[in-house]
Amino acid sequence: MDVSNTPATVTWTETPEGPSVRLIDQTCLPGELVLKDCYALEEVCEAIKSLRVRGAPAIGCSAALGVALAVYTSGADCTRELISVVEDAAKQLAATRPTAVNLFWALERMRQLAQQSASLPPEAFRQVLLEEAQRIVDDDIDRCRRIGQYGAELILEGANILTHCNAGALATAGYGTALGIIRAAHQQGKDIHVWADETRPLLQGARLTAWELAQEGIPCTVICDSVAASLMQMGKVDCVVVGADRIAANGDVANKIGTYAVAIAAARHEIPFYVVAPLSTLDFSLATGQEIPIEQRSPEEVCYLADRVTEPICPEGADVYNPAFDVTPAELIAAIITEVGIARQPLAASLAGLSGEDSSAGFGSSS
Amino acid sequence: MDVSNTPATVTWTETPEGPSVRLIDQTCLPGELVLKDCYALEEVCEAIKSLRVRGAPAIGCSAALGVALAVYTSGADCTRELISVVEDAAKQLAATRPTAVNLFWALERMRQLAQQSASLPPEAFRQVLLEEAQRIVDDDIDRCRRIGQYGAELILEGANILTHCNAGALATAGYGTALGIIRAAHQQGKDIHVWADETRPLLQGARLTAWELAQEGIPCTVICDSVAASLMQMGKVDCVVVGADRIAANGDVANKIGTYAVAIAAARHEIPFYVVAPLSTLDFSLATGQEIPIEQRSPEEVCYLADRVTEPICPEGADVYNPAFDVTPAELIAAIITEVGIARQPLAASLAGLSGEDSSAGFGSSS
Repeated sequence: MDVSNTPATVTWTETPEGPSVRLIDQTCLPGELVLKDCYALEEVCEAIKSLRVRGAPAIGCSAALGVALAVYTSGADCTRELISVVEDAAKQLAATRPTAVNLFWALERMRQLAQQSASLPPEAFRQVLLEEAQRIVDDDIDRCRRIGQYGAELILEGANILTHCNAGALATAGYGTALGIIRAAHQQGKDIHVWADETRPLLQGARLTAWELAQEGIPCTVICDSVAASLMQMGKVDCVVVGADRIAANGDVANKIGTYAVAIAAARHEIPFYVVAPLSTLDFSLATGQEIPIEQRSPEEVCYLADRVTEPICPEGADVYNPAFDVTPAELIAAIITEVGIARQPLAASLAGLSGEDSSAGFGSSS
Repeated sequence: MDVSNTPATVTWTETPEGPSVRLIDQTCLPGELVLKDCYALEEVCEAIKSLRVRGAPAIGCSAALGVALAVYTSGADCTRELISVVEDAAKQLAATRPTAVNLFWALERMRQLAQQSASLPPEAFRQVLLEEAQRIVDDDIDRCRRIGQYGAELILEGANILTHCNAGALATAGYGTALGIIRAAHQQGKDIHVWADETRPLLQGARLTAWELAQEGIPCTVICDSVAASLMQMGKVDCVVVGADRIAANGDVANKIGTYAVAIAAARHEIPFYVVAPLSTLDFSLATGQEIPIEQRSPEEVCYLADRVTEPICPEGADVYNPAFDVTPAELIAAIITEVGIARQPLAASLAGLSGEDSSAGFGSSS
């Protein structure tokens, strides 16, 4: 976060009880700011699965730190064994959530480094892996800031910006992607206002986006997801900015369920629809968004209003379909803003060009 | 309802405590089936305002019965005074909710009859008004059944039908409009399945539509509102059927917030979008939907999840925008199904033609 008294989304922390992956438990927001210490890999996996930490970049960071935690908490006294620990940890972490590719990208970086570090003694091996995980975290904040600088130019003075879900500091190691460019525009002195879709079922927009923006005094109004199209019809939305969980080679974007509906409405009203993501969200191994695996989640998230009620909102035994993501086709997207620049239509060529400018990013990793 | 052991949505009931407008308190569903007796006009007004009874046709029926209740509970012993009671009751009821035109249509029928009955003695006056209110209720069920017969032909064998909010037996005196044609298709033996948008903020889809369909064994799956477009993208929706709260002369339709977003998505996927409503929902005094007054409701409905939680989902002090309806332009609507037939494009001419076939309907009443 850019707010001095707000803790980081996820960090490596030395505690009296040993090393911890410390994260803001986002299921408790906005009511309470709770920090959760994960002292074991299993706790990191649980935190990702249950969305205590969420958002594609933050999941990647948490996974990298989770691998480091696994090697630090392992009693193994030879590096060969520690490499097995890394492989096992990567397998467990990879099974937490299927859609956000940043998870697999971060795990791949950790696995490759582990293989390359086979000749190191155990303690040096542990340290090298932790440094890599911390680099992934630090890089993420840095990338978000660069994204913010590129993207802020798209936000005009006086703009009403609609966003879906939370692609903010809480979805990254800090600063945010979609909210990063909103934050940057605000810091430039632009007078802007944000419409935050509440984002059913888990309400990340109402709970997290509105909370983050309130911390910084950026004007924000929460709406039910179904209101967005009507606001556009009334001329009250100037642009849409959202994050991404995975972007296929052709520019199709998987993001929080409901993103596609917003994109269709924006297209009808000729409102620019921007996707904001670091290059680690690109998956060039998939030709189109149709190949992106879409996570199906529990009906209880819908029926029990994100675990906030004990009596279900649906009649007993009702069927519920609860996909976590949808795919917005590239044709509906005006631009994708990354840390190395803005990809415009045609997105496929533009993304390929941008990714070539940052050969260190290591694209193409897939689940 | 078409289910023998389910009580009527709203009825005139003689109780030991006196006459009552008895209604299913829909805020308690699906957890509990609670019948609420309204013994005074103010209770009927409160029930409409707080959505204990809702749905444009059911609001019209409740308002007509509310006027009858006002004259029955009045101690006035001359008809001139009772006419004042009717006028006052109509004024109070008209102030409950602004969008559903059936409310004003029903009140206008009651007011006109009162004026025409000035020469009757008080008891006969009371009786004539009650009979008119009961006729409005009985006609509503009859109209829904005729709508069902016309509309069922549009529902094909094996269809996956998406609906938004509740335009069912609970939204009418019985049988329903949009759900009426689903019910009729089911009764014809068609193997159909319904996707029910949960319909934030007040969750009428999850709470009421899924409950109604479960009563009759019609397969139904609840989804968050933001899922509809994605289902269409996957080819899993064959048609959309929704109700209406007011239809302008050009065929623009005001209906529950979120209807417009569904209509846009249906248009993109070339899925027919049907509106189902009795002629009493037509308002020929309004040229287009832009003139339809849209009710704004309390932010608390959003923040406190339809009064189901005590801790708000938004951060303290967050702004919330909570319109109850939106307007779907006529161009997105394949057909409007009424009790006298199906209006197709061009809707303006088609609706004018249909309404001419039922000169008793008394259109053009407005708030």
